[in-house]
Amino acid sequence: MAEVLPLRRTPAGVPVASCVLAHESKQVEAGLIRDVSMEVHAVALGELAAVLASAVPGGAIRATGFLAAKSQRSRNPVLHLNTIEFLEGN
Amino acid sequence: MAEVLPLRRTPAGVPVASCVLAHESKQVEAGLIRDVSMEVHAVALGELAAVLASAVPGGAIRATGFLAAKSQRSRNPVLHLNTIEFLEGN
Repeated sequence: MAEVLPLRRTPAGVPVASCVLAHESKQVEAGLIRDVSMEVHAVALGELAAVLASAVPGGAIRATGFLAAKSQRSRNPVLHLNTIEFLEGN
Repeated sequence: MAEVLPLRRTPAGVPVASCVLAHESKQVEAGLIRDVSMEVHAVALGELAAVLASAVPGGAIRATGFLAAKSQRSRNPVLHLNTIEFLEGN
């Protein structure tokens, strides 16, 4: 969890929380093991928004969700979270 | 497959192909089904590069891989492909 932004609400009143997730791992590409790091903006809506907003920057989480374009203008993917699991040390 | 860029080689001589993948599906978020669309840059290295470079824009593929930051400067995720399966109609 690199950054956690405060809880807000959509115009329709749905709670939304967003964050920046940083990931590091080793992956196999073309038969070789390589170090991978990446960052992705993530959002949580509804009940999950309060869970995300309570996260501590620097803590480790395991998350699932799907990627969707940020907006019609920016096609960069944003991770929409469906589950958040706080890992030890968070 | 929204766009396919020509095969090139890294300074070390490794073949690299890249493309833009466009995805559309329905996903569940906060208990509601929603339409999702997104685009992501993807790359294939080594033997898989020639496979990707042979793809036809507009064709459908199923792919697996991992996300990694584009570079030290741009942390936007790029999909590194491990498998490419051409689907019917490609």
